[in-house]
Order: sequence, then C-alpha cells, then structure tokens
Amino acid sequence: MLAKKYLRECKGFIDQAIPEFLPEKDGYPQSIHESMHYSLFAGGKRLRPSLLIASAEAVGGNRNRVLPFAVAVEFLHTYTLIHDDLPALDNDSLRRGKPTNHKVYGEAIAILAGDALLTQAFVLMTDPLLMEVIPHKNILRASHEIAKAMSSTGVIGGQVVDLESEGQQVDASTLEYIHIYKTGFFFKACVRIGAILSGASSSQLGTLSRYGAHIGLAFQIIDDILDITGEQQQLGKDVGSDIDKSKATYPALFGLEESKKKAESLVDEALGCLENFDERADPLREIARFFVQRTF
Amino acid sequence: MLAKKYLRECKGFIDQAIPEFLPEKDGYPQSIHESMHYSLFAGGKRLRPSLLIASAEAVGGNRNRVLPFAVAVEFLHTYTLIHDDLPALDNDSLRRGKPTNHKVYGEAIAILAGDALLTQAFVLMTDPLLMEVIPHKNILRASHEIAKAMSSTGVIGGQVVDLESEGQQVDASTLEYIHIYKTGFFFKACVRIGAILSGASSSQLGTLSRYGAHIGLAFQIIDDILDITGEQQQLGKDVGSDIDKSKATYPALFGLEESKKKAESLVDEALGCLENFDERADPLREIARFFVQRTF
Repeated sequence: MLAKKYLRECKGFIDQAIPEFLPEKDGYPQSIHESMHYSLFAGGKRLRPSLLIASAEAVGGNRNRVLPFAVAVEFLHTYTLIHDDLPALDNDSLRRGKPTNHKVYGEAIAILAGDALLTQAFVLMTDPLLMEVIPHKNILRASHEIAKAMSSTGVIGGQVVDLESEGQQVDASTLEYIHIYKTGFFFKACVRIGAILSGASSSQLGTLSRYGAHIGLAFQIIDDILDITGEQQQLGKDVGSDIDKSKATYPALFGLEESKKKAESLVDEALGCLENFDERADPLREIARFFVQRTF
Repeated sequence: MLAKKYLRECKGFIDQAIPEFLPEKDGYPQSIHESMHYSLFAGGKRLRPSLLIASAEAVGGNRNRVLPFAVAVEFLHTYTLIHDDLPALDNDSLRRGKPTNHKVYGEAIAILAGDALLTQAFVLMTDPLLMEVIPHKNILRASHEIAKAMSSTGVIGGQVVDLESEGQQVDASTLEYIHIYKTGFFFKACVRIGAILSGASSSQLGTLSRYGAHIGLAFQIIDDILDITGEQQQLGKDVGSDIDKSKATYPALFGLEESKKKAESLVDEALGCLENFDERADPLREIARFFVQRTF
C-alpha cells in the first residue's frame, strides 16, 4: 500500500533529521535534553510532518526545503502529548506502550521539556537561514498559521474544553468543537503550511485547507473508535481509557457504525477536494484512505 | 527620577496594549482566557518590554513599531512565572501579593495558560502585518533570538539547573550559570531585539548586548538581596523564601555587602557600554541605575 510506504519513508527522513535540530541528548543541562529526546523517540508515527511534506510535494515543493518546519510540527505534537499526559491533565502513565515523560523524568522536567519543545519549534521556524530557500513572506505566514493553530483559540482551547467536559453530558456540538480544535486545526495547519512554504496558489490552498480539515476530523473519529476496539499492544495505551474517564467520543454519542460511516464520508470529501491535483497529490490521497483503514 | 517616570509611562503604554493582542477575557473557552488575563494583570512592572522599547528608542527606533514584540516579551515573562510557580516546580502560592495562577484556576489551566501565552507571543511576533513597518529579515532575526534565549539552552536551561540545585551545595560557577541563563539571557534578548527591529548597526548591537548582559545579572543579584532584606508587602512574596528552600543565591555565597558591590560594578560596566550613544539612550542609562537602587 502506497500510503504505508510513503509514511515509512517520511518517518525515516524525519527520524534522521530530528537530532540535527535539537541540542544533544547529553547537552547541559542533561535531564531536560534526555527528556526531550525520550519523548521524541518514543514511537511517534510522524503523521503531521509527513502530511506537511506530502502537501508540499503535491504543489511541486521540495521536502528538503520544508524539513525544518516538518521537524517543528513534530516538536509541537510531542509537547502537547507530554503536557496532556501530566497528572493535572489526563494523568496517563503509558503512551505508545512506554512510560510517559513525567513517569520517567518527574513532573517538573516534563513540564519544562514540553515548554522547551514548543520553544524549539519556533527556533527552527524563524531561523534566518531558511530565507535562503523560502521567500520570507511565506516563512512568516507559515509560522503565524501554526502558532495560531496551537493557541488558546486552537489546539489549547480544544484541550481545555475536553478537560472541562470530563464526566459531563456532552452534546454533539461540544464534541465537534473538541475534535476540530484539539486535532483538526493542527492537521489542517500542517497541510496548509506545507503548501504555503512551497508557493501554492490561493485556490490550491483553499482546497488543501478543506482536505486538511476533513482528514483531521476523520483521524480523531477513528482514534475514538480504536480506543474502544483496538488491541492494547497496538495502541500502546489502556484500551477503553477514554470511556473510563467518561470522555466525550464519537462512538459514545453516535455508536460505532455511525462513527465509522462519518469518518469514511469525511475521507471521501477530502479526496474530492484533490480532484484538480495531479499524481503528485497521490500521497495525500493515500494518507487520507489510510486514516480510516488504520488499526493503530 | 527619570527611570521611574519612563518606566511608569512604558507600563501605561504596555498595559493599554496587552488586551488588543489577546483573545478577550470572556472568549471561549473562558477559563483559560480569564487565567491568562489574571496573570498578565497581576502587578507586573513591565521591565522587559520597557527595556525593549528603551533600546529601540536609543537607536532611533519607534515604540509603536516594536509594540507587538514588547507585548510578546511580557507574555513570555508571564508564562515563565506561571510555570515556575507550579507545585511541581517552585510551589509558590503568592506572587506580587496575589494568589498564583494555579491557586486560582487549578494546575491544569495554569499549565495550559502558560503554554498559551508562550504560543501567543509567537502569534504576535510572526504577524505578517508587521512586515509593513519592519524589514522582514529583522522580524525573523528578532523572533529567532528571543526563541533561542527562552530555549532549553537559555532560560529553561537555567530553570532546570536552579531546580536541580535546590538543597545542594552550589559553587560560584553554577550560581552564575543559573543567573545568566535564567534571567540574564532574557534581559539581553529584550535589549537586542529592540535594537534589531529598529535597524541598529552591528557595532551598536554589540555594545547593547554587553549592556543587556550586565544589567541582567545585576537585576538578579539585587533580586536575591531583596529576597533577604525586602519588605514582604513590597516584594509580594514570602521574604526569605529562597533561603527556606536552600536556593543558591549571591548573598548566600558572597555575603550581602559583596553582592551589592558586584551589582553596582555591573551597572557601571553597563553604563560604560553606552558611552558612544547620545541622549536617546538616557532611559537605558536610568533603567540601569534604577536596577540597583530599587527596593521592590
């Protein structure tokens, strides 16, 4: 399957690059750098940087040029995971089958490692050397978009509503808010900035935005489903943990079948958005299909 | 005294601007926005943005142009305070005489409010509209500098070493590392980016960097001294709290008199750096003097 091959290839590309964009693991002060490396190499699938790269390539861009941004979005994703897992938030002790950051390094270092990854993402995205290969306007625009997507009216806002909904009766519109803000905005931003950095036209950007929004929501719905049906070793966290915490999920509100159908129809819509793109958008098409077929 | 008047004026300028650069206090989700506003308006002196503005004006720059960056450094400062006060870090319940963020909003919201302020700082600094008044190269360079200053090899690194030194016998070089990294880098970066955004020459930038490094260290030494000698109501935190925690401080290592002398000589050196600047650098001169004369 093309998507798996493409994602495997992107993962290798990103994995190899990450250490170049980070202080060394034993750099002083050692505890925080070890902790940052630990969570970055704790089994991430690199879906967000892969989407960014696939989107860049879909509009004729080059993966080497967008690499610092691709690494930066993985830093941002990892920071959200470290902070979400903290005792004051989701209080998770396992992530992808490994002890969470604060279980290994303590809460103080986990908080600071999250802060440091968030900060490091902007170190990469604002590097003046990037101006040699990407127009400065596009660099600023892309950095601004991802910052807004991660803000209190984006991903963080979604996380707040998610936390405050625990144990509450949640209606469909609140659930959609959580999913769109906590997950969808980030996926959409990855797709958009890959395209922005590669000089996409505004019409290309418009359709890619819709593609990104659709697959972002589909991804989260499937995540909810896998949390119920998935195998523990494949998901690396306690199956049913969202139900234990009475978290708002699609299957809880609409049932498994209806949720699966919703995810599939979102992916169909996403594929429809790519109609006017040539074969360079095939990875984007395959990733969309993979999002509903995945079992982990 | 000129410095007090200048700082009061800058504080008014910044206080008035902050709400324009932030989602509204009752914006959805309300808890996090209330929490962000709470800490931003909990009695900050706005020293960092004032230094940034004073530095901009010292090289002929304009405070309105650098305003988004001035507000951004106050957001960054506030995020570090919220996270430093958390139970897993310094576990402080009072800050400037008011309950700390997590005491009012809970740990989860306090962690996310810190994250959101850090993120919002980069929303401001990367705003493409800034390119209309500041050359894009300078915007990227300034954003990059502040991101590096706040990173795991800057402010966060200093905080890590500070935490790990609690209850330990700390030597002079470790203490200097903590002070330079945790406080000095940030002050120096504020001075530098005010100048960078205003088109300073590289020789001006070099001397301003030395000025910033000197006053940053002087500020932290005086902070250590005030922690021992200051009045509780003036400092707004428990006097002697650093000694209770066996924290590394200048007076603990060198005594009060020696520490005061060190701070004064750093300020003299800072003033020496400004020799070739005209009267537009007077606010920078006065702020340096104020740093060792302050009683709060």
